[in-house]
Amino acid sequence: MANVYKKIELVGSSRDGVDDAIRRAIAKAGESLHNLDWFEVKEIRGWIQDGVPQHTQVTLQVGFRLDD
Amino acid sequence: MANVYKKIELVGSSRDGVDDAIRRAIAKAGESLHNLDWFEVKEIRGWIQDGVPQHTQVTLQVGFRLDD
Amino acid sequence: MANVYKKIELVGSSRDGVDDAIRRAIAKAGESLHNLDWFEVKEIRGWIQDGVPQHTQVTLQVGFRLDD
Amino acid sequence: MANVYKKIELVGSSRDGVDDAIRRAIAKAGESLHNLDWFEVKEIRGWIQDGVPQHTQVTLQVGFRLDD
Amino acid sequence: MANVYKKIELVGSSRDGVDDAIRRAIAKAGESLHNLDWFEVKEIRGWIQDGVPQHTQVTLQVGFRLDD
Amino acid sequence: MANVYKKIELVGSSRDGVDDAIRRAIAKAGESLHNLDWFEVKEIRGWIQDGVPQHTQVTLQVGFRLDD
Amino acid sequence: MANVYKKIELVGSSRDGVDDAIRRAIAKAGESLHNLDWFEVKEIRGWIQDGVPQHTQVTLQVGFRLDD
Amino acid sequence: MANVYKKIELVGSSRDGVDDAIRRAIAKAGESLHNLDWFEVKEIRGWIQDGVPQHTQVTLQVGFRLDD
Amino acid sequence: MANVYKKIELVGSSRDGVDDAIRRAIAKAGESLHNLDWFEVKEIRGWIQDGVPQHTQVTLQVGFRLDD
Amino acid sequence: MANVYKKIELVGSSRDGVDDAIRRAIAKAGESLHNLDWFEVKEIRGWIQDGVPQHTQVTLQVGFRLDD
Amino acid sequence: MANVYKKIELVGSSRDGVDDAIRRAIAKAGESLHNLDWFEVKEIRGWIQDGVPQHTQVTLQVGFRLDD
Amino acid sequence: MANVYKKIELVGSSRDGVDDAIRRAIAKAGESLHNLDWFEVKEIRGWIQDGVPQHTQVTLQVGFRLDD
Repeated sequence: MANVYKKIELVGSSRDGVDDAIRRAIAKAGESLHNLDWFEVKEIRGWIQDGVPQHTQVTLQVGFRLDD
Repeated sequence: MANVYKKIELVGSSRDGVDDAIRRAIAKAGESLHNLDWFEVKEIRGWIQDGVPQHTQVTLQVGFRLDD
Repeated sequence: MANVYKKIELVGSSRDGVDDAIRRAIAKAGESLHNLDWFEVKEIRGWIQDGVPQHTQVTLQVGFRLDD
Repeated sequence: MANVYKKIELVGSSRDGVDDAIRRAIAKAGESLHNLDWFEVKEIRGWIQDGVPQHTQVTLQVGFRLDD
Repeated sequence: MANVYKKIELVGSSRDGVDDAIRRAIAKAGESLHNLDWFEVKEIRGWIQDGVPQHTQVTLQVGFRLDD
Repeated sequence: MANVYKKIELVGSSRDGVDDAIRRAIAKAGESLHNLDWFEVKEIRGWIQDGVPQHTQVTLQVGFRLDD
Repeated sequence: MANVYKKIELVGSSRDGVDDAIRRAIAKAGESLHNLDWFEVKEIRGWIQDGVPQHTQVTLQVGFRLDD
Repeated sequence: MANVYKKIELVGSSRDGVDDAIRRAIAKAGESLHNLDWFEVKEIRGWIQDGVPQHTQVTLQVGFRLDD
Repeated sequence: MANVYKKIELVGSSRDGVDDAIRRAIAKAGESLHNLDWFEVKEIRGWIQDGVPQHTQVTLQVGFRLDD
Repeated sequence: MANVYKKIELVGSSRDGVDDAIRRAIAKAGESLHNLDWFEVKEIRGWIQDGVPQHTQVTLQVGFRLDD
Repeated sequence: MANVYKKIELVGSSRDGVDDAIRRAIAKAGESLHNLDWFEVKEIRGWIQDGVPQHTQVTLQVGFRLDD
Repeated sequence: MANVYKKIELVGSSRDGVDDAIRRAIAKAGESLHNLDWFEVKEIRGWIQDGVPQHTQVTLQVGFRLDD
């Protein structure tokens, strides 16, 4: 009811762009945490090689409910 | 010439990611408003279920020209 | 080793959404600059016509290494 | 499922402090809007008289679901 | 006493500069709203043509008292 | 009419929470300044001891009219 | 003397308002961490039901001393 | 050479707009302080009456050199 | 259609205030760049002498279309 | 226990860099104020001459306890 | 290739200034984490005693690669 | 008198810390630009190797006067 949540900050990266980078960061977080509840995008950046964006990096905060 | 615009704030959501959430919010706004002119993304967040982002939510400000 | 980088600010636009607008801005920058290294998204906005987003505009800062 | 929300900005005020000013702003919004869903505090300020804070003013954004 | 206010966001524009763009936005708002109480400037920008600023655009939030 | 105001920045603290910390800061300011007119909350933080928040600290800007 | 601190981000929630939400988040953190030292409020928001704020949610950063 | 400066925050107001509000705040500051050196505009807002902006209020920080 | 724009940052200054400082910065930019399209005000500050603001300085970002 | 603090804003400058500019601003403040308690860096900038940074300027807020 | 990174927030402190406080925070993080990759300075503040800055405190976010 | 300035954004890096990274960025800028006038620090970050900060990177905006 009056739950307490914790937020962690992750950086996901993808060759396919913003949406896929979000999915990868959350999939990784889900390996060790359950009760993942929401995410907030904090920053979008990326690396360029040979004039082409290679990796889009999305920094997210992911919120999850702490167990009672 | 010297027009006045109004900005409203909407949150669109989509299972398909950022671009589709923008389209949905604007399509909804277009049902009741005409003269929609531009949008500005203010926030990207979303809900997670079973370790997968279910809904990407994009908060936008949408500007439209007020009639003379 | 202790390189100096310069950052310029570009606005790319695309009918296909955020990821494509990023690619277009960087491709354009690559025509006149080499050593492009990274980008940071500063703003996402766009133009609406007939109730549909026509152009997504992404403002980026692009960093490149200055020659020694 | 893929709902669209609108956010409006209100300023509630109260002689009793922050929590009561939030309640008053939301109660007022509820008179003309249904489907109120969440609020976000944007600013807390207030007026002083005779060296005592008379009115605490809380600026909130209130989100509500647009009807389908 | 413990009033509730609403804030809307407008963009006024003028060939004459910042002060006139503020006046125009507020005059337009006053056509359909009464009890206008205060404004806050959020952004100043404008359009350029032939190397000369043609329209200064001022984004404002305008606050007005909701009727009891 | 066309008054000039000065703003000072204070930090009030209280064992009872946000509203009381605001009151204490303003009461202190009123000992040496008259014409106190408004306040704006800039930051809320606090100290913890034995796992319990002991002091809520509220940073405020307090505005007062300069005498003519 | 020259200690190193870590900050984590928590969201506490309460039916009673801001001060109680802060207390709950810190009490929860204290179950698994000792040396809690200070908190900083980052965001205040909440959920509305039937036109009444049901849960005030306060996002805090909580700092604690790392053991030597 | 290695001077120390102090910055104070003032709010000037004018019926004539932004530039005049700046001048009035600085003129007032100059009555009790010398060595005024620079100003930075922090906020522009104002009061509306009968649908017309009556007072433009400009919040400035004013820097001045502390005497040796 | 899907143009790419570049933004540069300029500081214009004027004895006459904000609007004139904007005009001067853009006139200067127009000497070496064509296709100037829009500007965004980032900062307003200025220098004081003998208790009077001597130069208002306006920092702007100016956007222009890159040639195809 | 429930003290009230005041914060003032200073700009220290030094030919030796950031740390020394902080020390100089605080030393100057200590000439006229006692009970100085903490500082917060708000801005780092500086002046260049002949292609070399001559003065690093650090803007700080300095907090001190008001006497009871 | 498409790695996921986590960011944690630390506060290092030093009697010697900014650079040393950064080093201390990272050295402490390195005791329990490997794959430390980058840091970002979020805040610089410090404590004053007898009119002299005693501890410079630097808040950093430290990013490290999560193991596959 | 009423000069126009341009600001560019550079990232300097150094093994010795913040002050040296500033110097290196400005020295590099001075190779191709004259009339360098001031700098503003926008970001401090860096790279870590083997648990030790290897390069402190300082992002600066550097302002210089445009020739008449």
